[in-house]
Amino acid sequence: MPEISQRGQIMPASPIRKLVPYAEAAKKRGTRVYHLNIGQPDIETPPAALDAVRNFHFKVLEYSHSGGNESYRRKLVKYYAARGIDINYHQIIITTGGSEAILFGFLGCLDAGDEVIIPEPFYANYNGFAVEAGVKVVPVTSYIDTGFALPSAEAFEKAVTKKTRAIMICNPNNPTGYLYSKEEWETLRKFALKHNLYIFSDEAYREFCYEGTHVSAMQLEGMDQHVVLMDTISKRYSACGGRIGAFITRNQQVHDTIMKFAQARLSPPSFSQILGEAAVDLPDDYFNTTREEYRRRRDLIVKRLNEMPGVFCPNPGGAFYAIASLPVPDADAFCQWLLESFSHNGETLMLAPASGFYGSPGLGLNEVRLAYVLNQQSIAAAMDCLQAALLEYPDRIRDKKDIPLASHY
Amino acid sequence: MPEISQRGQIMPASPIRKLVPYAEAAKKRGTRVYHLNIGQPDIETPPAALDAVRNFHFKVLEYSHSGGNESYRRKLVKYYAARGIDINYHQIIITTGGSEAILFGFLGCLDAGDEVIIPEPFYANYNGFAVEAGVKVVPVTSYIDTGFALPSAEAFEKAVTKKTRAIMICNPNNPTGYLYSKEEWETLRKFALKHNLYIFSDEAYREFCYEGTHVSAMQLEGMDQHVVLMDTISKRYSACGGRIGAFITRNQQVHDTIMKFAQARLSPPSFSQILGEAAVDLPDDYFNTTREEYRRRRDLIVKRLNEMPGVFCPNPGGAFYAIASLPVPDADAFCQWLLESFSHNGETLMLAPASGFYGSPGLGLNEVRLAYVLNQQSIAAAMDCLQAALLEYPDRIRDKKDIPLASHY
Repeated sequence: MPEISQRGQIMPASPIRKLVPYAEAAKKRGTRVYHLNIGQPDIETPPAALDAVRNFHFKVLEYSHSGGNESYRRKLVKYYAARGIDINYHQIIITTGGSEAILFGFLGCLDAGDEVIIPEPFYANYNGFAVEAGVKVVPVTSYIDTGFALPSAEAFEKAVTKKTRAIMICNPNNPTGYLYSKEEWETLRKFALKHNLYIFSDEAYREFCYEGTHVSAMQLEGMDQHVVLMDTISKRYSACGGRIGAFITRNQQVHDTIMKFAQARLSPPSFSQILGEAAVDLPDDYFNTTREEYRRRRDLIVKRLNEMPGVFCPNPGGAFYAIASLPVPDADAFCQWLLESFSHNGETLMLAPASGFYGSPGLGLNEVRLAYVLNQQSIAAAMDCLQAALLEYPDRIRDKKDIPLASHY
Repeated sequence: MPEISQRGQIMPASPIRKLVPYAEAAKKRGTRVYHLNIGQPDIETPPAALDAVRNFHFKVLEYSHSGGNESYRRKLVKYYAARGIDINYHQIIITTGGSEAILFGFLGCLDAGDEVIIPEPFYANYNGFAVEAGVKVVPVTSYIDTGFALPSAEAFEKAVTKKTRAIMICNPNNPTGYLYSKEEWETLRKFALKHNLYIFSDEAYREFCYEGTHVSAMQLEGMDQHVVLMDTISKRYSACGGRIGAFITRNQQVHDTIMKFAQARLSPPSFSQILGEAAVDLPDDYFNTTREEYRRRRDLIVKRLNEMPGVFCPNPGGAFYAIASLPVPDADAFCQWLLESFSHNGETLMLAPASGFYGSPGLGLNEVRLAYVLNQQSIAAAMDCLQAALLEYPDRIRDKKDIPLASHY
């Protein structure tokens, strides 16, 4: 029997999905499970965008242009212009989700053995794409007690080697919800310039900022040759299943290189490009409603968490995630216990243990990520469960000195 | 300015699409261009399958299961069973086109530096996926004078090194149209067993066989741990833009490994999974009509080509491609000339130079690939153009001894 590749063996399993069998078992026992573990919004996809798909009129479902339909790319130029991002449609490559944009960046801008610096905790699938491309992720730690602010310039300098080729930023951040300030971007800009690095900017949650203003990497001065924007419509239009994203850069050489990768896989999905194009025409206030809903959920979940003894949750400035530290020695075990051994009025909740979002072993052991993608009533009920669970959990830490050293609770 | 990666630099541009600017210029001059260069069928996508997409009833376009909707995978089991392929739905991973299935195989079964043996000429994008995975393609040459039959067992033996991990077969073949016999599969089976290799089987054109019977690699005895089927609905339902394929294996370890890659990119596109699922319910005789149409086109194009002096085209047993040798020293230059400098009653044709389908330099220089994806009237008109062009072409070879040595015309 042929062997599995080394690459296949080290490819990480999804830390978000690994508790799924326990959740399924809980449901089979009749327990209701509140899913705060995964970034699948419950918000309805805009009906007008769905209708556009229903009303397609072609008879042959053809390949599109490898870079995506020109009509869609031209529309997107307007979307970005309205957000202070000045690009033309030749600089856009439509990708199969933000996932493919990230993979394309790792493949086209870095070689196997090269390094990308990423503030941790970070979106866990960056690890998977890095393994696919043979790229090494070098984490620089951000901490819960600063609300996961950007690590210092010194910390970034320490992480640089002669193999460093890029820095990857998610803003606002998944999993922390942190929104980077103009000053933090200036630190990153100087750092990238000094070491001649690419800046890969994942702005999936751009539309969901609650404090301050969103700064796009595309707005950084003098960085046209460095910046790649990796975007997606999954979160902003609650259209995760469409698998439509974008790889955007003003660097012509990078664009031309990535087009070769885009051509090899022929084209992005056709139906969802129709959806993406129609979504650009939504009324200007479309995002206000969604944003306000997420803001109310954030306010509720953060308040409830911080009211629980021994729990700390910094107030996230954007996205729809929060990381909280819990008075438990091992959040992985606690999250499994929630599904396996606990229920409160026939209900429990599913959380994502934060350890899977750290690149450095031993960090985030008492932290969990919560995605506030359920309505406020469900969030309140889930928080009731969590509160009851922490009172009942046999391994609960009652003395601060017993909390794992690596955490900053 | 940061540099492009070595990988990005060696990534090949699409040989099928590189003449596109010349075609666009010809159209701007008012010349009608018959596109025989690309495998985009003109056949209508089954209306019932398109209607299923129109009639979706969800309100949130959610991520699907990373391995694809269970309902779709269960349906596919029936599709394969009707073709003598016995699998269960746990062995199917729905991919974003056949492209992703191929990339997943290269990434999960091979390491960077490993080798995959592929009979040449072969589908050019295999090169691209190999570059992405750092895998080396080792070509074994098949020849036009045998109609591109499987190379001998000895030729395969010569290609083996200690780095060889897999053999890749496209059946029926793109670009040659060759349909592999049971005896040829037996050669491949013994070879793969002897050297403990994976067999990657691309069966995109399974439904379009005109001579003999299709043998699937999944039907090989004793090869469950070796065989990976890389499939797609693009060609069989004329649904290229859907980007739906499948990675199918009975090897549990390979399946589990590839699921990690599938999870990293979250899910395949949702809308087109609906289309794929509905298509399985098409009446049993659905493919008869399409197959007979392609057969008539094949008969026409092969007859017309072989009637032209100095042209040879073996009769392809399947798919919708043919390779012909032309009395020209350099088919690349000839194809460009067709678009740049020639027209016949205001019309011309676009062909794919075959050199781009060979891994060995210098082969196929006087060969072109023709995709018979136009109706018979258009094919006849395109053949009128080609016939006139060969009479008019200044560099036409009139003496056999002037034909490039590497070819087997």
